[in-house]
Amino acid sequence: MSGKVKVGIFGASGYTGAELLRLLVPHPHVELKLLTADRKAGLNMADVFPQFTGLDLPVLTKIDEADLSTVDALFTALPHGTTQTVISDAFKSNPKLKIVDLSADFRLGDPAAYATWYGHEHHALDLQKEAVFGLTEHYREAIKTARLVANPGCHSTTSILPVVPLLKAGVIDPDNIVIDSKTGMSGAGRAANEAMLFSEVSEGIHAYGVGKHRHTSELDQEYGKAAGRDVFAMFTPVLAPMNRGIYATVYVRTANGAKAEDLHAALAKAYANEPFVQVLKFGQVPHSRHVRGSNTCQIGVVADRLPGRAIVISTTDNLMKGASGQAVQNFNLVFGLPETSGLAGPALFP
Amino acid sequence: MSGKVKVGIFGASGYTGAELLRLLVPHPHVELKLLTADRKAGLNMADVFPQFTGLDLPVLTKIDEADLSTVDALFTALPHGTTQTVISDAFKSNPKLKIVDLSADFRLGDPAAYATWYGHEHHALDLQKEAVFGLTEHYREAIKTARLVANPGCHSTTSILPVVPLLKAGVIDPDNIVIDSKTGMSGAGRAANEAMLFSEVSEGIHAYGVGKHRHTSELDQEYGKAAGRDVFAMFTPVLAPMNRGIYATVYVRTANGAKAEDLHAALAKAYANEPFVQVLKFGQVPHSRHVRGSNTCQIGVVADRLPGRAIVISTTDNLMKGASGQAVQNFNLVFGLPETSGLAGPALFP
Amino acid sequence: MSGKVKVGIFGASGYTGAELLRLLVPHPHVELKLLTADRKAGLNMADVFPQFTGLDLPVLTKIDEADLSTVDALFTALPHGTTQTVISDAFKSNPKLKIVDLSADFRLGDPAAYATWYGHEHHALDLQKEAVFGLTEHYREAIKTARLVANPGCHSTTSILPVVPLLKAGVIDPDNIVIDSKTGMSGAGRAANEAMLFSEVSEGIHAYGVGKHRHTSELDQEYGKAAGRDVFAMFTPVLAPMNRGIYATVYVRTANGAKAEDLHAALAKAYANEPFVQVLKFGQVPHSRHVRGSNTCQIGVVADRLPGRAIVISTTDNLMKGASGQAVQNFNLVFGLPETSGLAGPALFP
Amino acid sequence: MSGKVKVGIFGASGYTGAELLRLLVPHPHVELKLLTADRKAGLNMADVFPQFTGLDLPVLTKIDEADLSTVDALFTALPHGTTQTVISDAFKSNPKLKIVDLSADFRLGDPAAYATWYGHEHHALDLQKEAVFGLTEHYREAIKTARLVANPGCHSTTSILPVVPLLKAGVIDPDNIVIDSKTGMSGAGRAANEAMLFSEVSEGIHAYGVGKHRHTSELDQEYGKAAGRDVFAMFTPVLAPMNRGIYATVYVRTANGAKAEDLHAALAKAYANEPFVQVLKFGQVPHSRHVRGSNTCQIGVVADRLPGRAIVISTTDNLMKGASGQAVQNFNLVFGLPETSGLAGPALFP
Repeated sequence: MSGKVKVGIFGASGYTGAELLRLLVPHPHVELKLLTADRKAGLNMADVFPQFTGLDLPVLTKIDEADLSTVDALFTALPHGTTQTVISDAFKSNPKLKIVDLSADFRLGDPAAYATWYGHEHHALDLQKEAVFGLTEHYREAIKTARLVANPGCHSTTSILPVVPLLKAGVIDPDNIVIDSKTGMSGAGRAANEAMLFSEVSEGIHAYGVGKHRHTSELDQEYGKAAGRDVFAMFTPVLAPMNRGIYATVYVRTANGAKAEDLHAALAKAYANEPFVQVLKFGQVPHSRHVRGSNTCQIGVVADRLPGRAIVISTTDNLMKGASGQAVQNFNLVFGLPETSGLAGPALFP
Repeated sequence: MSGKVKVGIFGASGYTGAELLRLLVPHPHVELKLLTADRKAGLNMADVFPQFTGLDLPVLTKIDEADLSTVDALFTALPHGTTQTVISDAFKSNPKLKIVDLSADFRLGDPAAYATWYGHEHHALDLQKEAVFGLTEHYREAIKTARLVANPGCHSTTSILPVVPLLKAGVIDPDNIVIDSKTGMSGAGRAANEAMLFSEVSEGIHAYGVGKHRHTSELDQEYGKAAGRDVFAMFTPVLAPMNRGIYATVYVRTANGAKAEDLHAALAKAYANEPFVQVLKFGQVPHSRHVRGSNTCQIGVVADRLPGRAIVISTTDNLMKGASGQAVQNFNLVFGLPETSGLAGPALFP
Repeated sequence: MSGKVKVGIFGASGYTGAELLRLLVPHPHVELKLLTADRKAGLNMADVFPQFTGLDLPVLTKIDEADLSTVDALFTALPHGTTQTVISDAFKSNPKLKIVDLSADFRLGDPAAYATWYGHEHHALDLQKEAVFGLTEHYREAIKTARLVANPGCHSTTSILPVVPLLKAGVIDPDNIVIDSKTGMSGAGRAANEAMLFSEVSEGIHAYGVGKHRHTSELDQEYGKAAGRDVFAMFTPVLAPMNRGIYATVYVRTANGAKAEDLHAALAKAYANEPFVQVLKFGQVPHSRHVRGSNTCQIGVVADRLPGRAIVISTTDNLMKGASGQAVQNFNLVFGLPETSGLAGPALFP
Repeated sequence: MSGKVKVGIFGASGYTGAELLRLLVPHPHVELKLLTADRKAGLNMADVFPQFTGLDLPVLTKIDEADLSTVDALFTALPHGTTQTVISDAFKSNPKLKIVDLSADFRLGDPAAYATWYGHEHHALDLQKEAVFGLTEHYREAIKTARLVANPGCHSTTSILPVVPLLKAGVIDPDNIVIDSKTGMSGAGRAANEAMLFSEVSEGIHAYGVGKHRHTSELDQEYGKAAGRDVFAMFTPVLAPMNRGIYATVYVRTANGAKAEDLHAALAKAYANEPFVQVLKFGQVPHSRHVRGSNTCQIGVVADRLPGRAIVISTTDNLMKGASGQAVQNFNLVFGLPETSGLAGPALFP
């Protein structure tokens, strides 16, 4: 790739949009050409997010007024449901576009599964078929040639990475997977919402979407592929009083005589050469704060007190590997750039 | 009971000690006579905890200098290990004493189990045999006549209350219990400790004691009694960035044809008349903040997307029902006082 | 007063409403008869604030449907502006009512000052004249016979208490008062508001209403009365990432040869017999957390490195002494009850 | 400068050390050769700070065993008091070294002032005379040729930047400066300390070092130089429940007929070309979170309700512009590198 990639962001005024900008502003191979935010059109990013004060960025515009002929790549950070139409139109406007979508609209490959979990028929079935699931470590080759990458959910990324290699290796029982996935608040987005006020959610913790969270459908899809059979994990998201971080505690039972150490070995092997997945020493417990602000997923494996049981713990930053960081990683692949471009900084701790 | 009960606290300078004082100062049937804190002897409580400024409280003294003939009741809020000797000596000094112990020293009735989990023989085997497990709702009658009440751990209380009635009713599979138990920071105590600095633990989350936390032994004991057989749940504590609150997500499989609704019914029945255990409406998810500062345990039952599986959620304030609140509840029973004396206030939220 | 006072709350679904309930439920002289919340009418308090689960409370109703003949006392915890009309109507409906108003509508005694700060003429000028400023320690006798008590703002209470005795004693320069008043988030109320989302306000701090916050008008009024001349302090509120607490750092210059110690003496004398104002030892610095959940104001005085300058620090819980706690304190006075009824518990820390 | 600068860090296991590493690992002109941490010698950085897992970094060693002939540059992030001896020895070992010191040892140029504030004679008076105060924007030219740069304190940086241009322009009264400077917890360092436990400091706020904080001496020095006379501001640091951020509210009175707008103009002019100091629009209030993780200082100027008074607000990240970020900025200058190398990323928010 010679020259810089001309990039647009649809939905720049949300948290994942701001995180994309944080990564793309210093990205050596990117030129930002287009930023949209329908309700903030006409404003500068610095008005919406003062951390961008002093930067020379495009003024926010409406999607309808965006000239897509000016960009090579588009990140879409919009609500699910409407995104499928927006993307369909975008490709009509500029068929050469490459799109990394951060919504949920193209994550499920099966139209029936989509309709079940989202309550309506998909409005862009052809694109749904074409889209590549953007879990980089498992779909790298397909992503390199994709026109539309469907970035996975933050809970999904964090829970798929540690489990898929175990299912493929046959070292855990697919019928006994329990996942308790703690998340920070920024995943809830920036919309005004009584339930997300500081006074409502600080100094306390609670589960939500219990037994039915939509990210579960992504686990079903990827676990099923890995196991070659249906896998229906128990999955509960829990909201913790912090901004960033997904922390999934995965309770498993070993299979085929495997020990906890074998689970660790399977994961260490699967991710040995990955720049953004780190399998910690056997027995070491990750902390979400050690991946804050970085694109890293840290995974730990601990033996339970009883043989045949183990705890696998996986953590990411929901705005990074769980959203915008992985989106940039996929973007790098699509455009033949070094996969770590713009993503090299260590985590921010404390 | 006529007149006030004369009360002492051993270990008044820790968080559970301070919480005992918060409850006992306005308690209508209590006269505080004795407060110890070996390293702070000679100071006033207001020097150690300025929220007690202006109160007329006994000066802090050393345990060795405490005159136990002046008190009817003693709360011991000391580290485990040494407590057993202290209590043994206290009964020698004043055999009529009633003691509520907040340490772990007398929670396990089986000497072998104690030795296994705590790494040494128990030093007061007779008292270990005599002590009554202080989970009020399940040992109320024994507590009323006890001389020594062994207050359960905060994780234990929170995870025993929602599970024991289910095991007794035979509606869940004892071999498939997974507990992910989030806790606030105050349970770690007031000792200087790098790992508990604000900058270390805020804005992040992590598991600890994975696969081997000592509170698990209390679950084993009580679950085993309830089921009439060995039960070894998977149990992982997780440290969340908040001061107070235990939040246990319990993943179960139903047994004997029971549905999630049957689990709810069994819990609602078990706790129908309890002042401090509230079973929420079927499907309602508790929040830890709604029990903050109160002695209440709130329990919710939610069906999983698959039949035969359910999520039971239980929450307490670790310093209240998980420690000092339940200790006062037990004290009230021991002295024939109304069980809710000094414990009537609703939770502090926000 | 024989029997219990029958009490209603207008605006029970906000944070100050919930805090009133927390205090009034265990209050020994109160019977709760009436709770309103226009947008939540028909619900139970437990639906709106699950910490009230299990209590036998009146169902939420609309103000228009409230029968005021059933109550002796009314707490109004409504937005400013509309409250004056609501209270005017309430007195018409039941002239014997006693009302403690937590809004800003009756705090300013001067119609012109009201119009200036609130942008419109007052709609109940007679009541404005009649209302007693509810800063208990300074208006106790008037409150005892008041029909309408205008509870001061949280910033105002916290900054008036430490300064008025100094102005009266003539030990500080009225022209050199600077107040930096930190506040927790709960003062912003429960309305959905992007600016108060957890992710917006956690892990950071910022000033607001700089140079023009409306509570300043209450300072002007009370400082002016105390000094017998105009006093226009510099006052800036700052939003800190915590739920509760006002923490005012007051920078003063001494006058008439006074030393910092003299300031301390003046405050200690002024509040020597007050149950809810504690002047700490000279040089001791208060922490907001030591008044959390209590009705206490703690005040410290520290000498600056230069003679003639001092720092006076005052802290309250904004929902307690800053709102609902002081409202109950005033209610107690109005009904001849012990002033500390329902307010005796020490602060919740940690 | 051709090739990379070989860099060592003394004191890599503290928060400022970790932050230096976060910046220097991806720095394009740096080769890390040497990391010390006396009590953690023999460990890897990943053992001390797991966010550095997977990086190829020097093993931690003791200062006594460090070979300073291998490095061109040294960052010292050690406690004050001992640092002066360590640096003195370092220059003896390698006279060509360039050192950026993050301790307080060389910030005060006046030996008498040092002795007064730190309680002992300085042990390296020659170096004290030689050291350049590392407030980049005001000592840039001297820093470029310095052998020893004394990085200012976090409170000092944040309060000197907004005030010095005003004193130089003569638009404020030097005798009426009041500074209330809020700080996050990471400035207190990583040593075990009861007072900094999460449960002690979360959900509350308090002042410390009132009337006598040592950073005040740096203000005195720099304000005095700017005004050409003694300036003794009132300065109080306040600990807020967040990890990062300094937020100084500076209360001033205008002089020589200046208006608040003139203060804004003076600051805007002074920092017009600075990459890391941003003067916001007149009236705009900064938030500390908008500089989190960045090397930026944001400054706002707001008029008070009374003419002749203004509020100037300045905010930095205490680990960045307040410590390690400014240290890298100074390092860049010393080695003739682009001043923004390694410091280009926007702030992390949320």
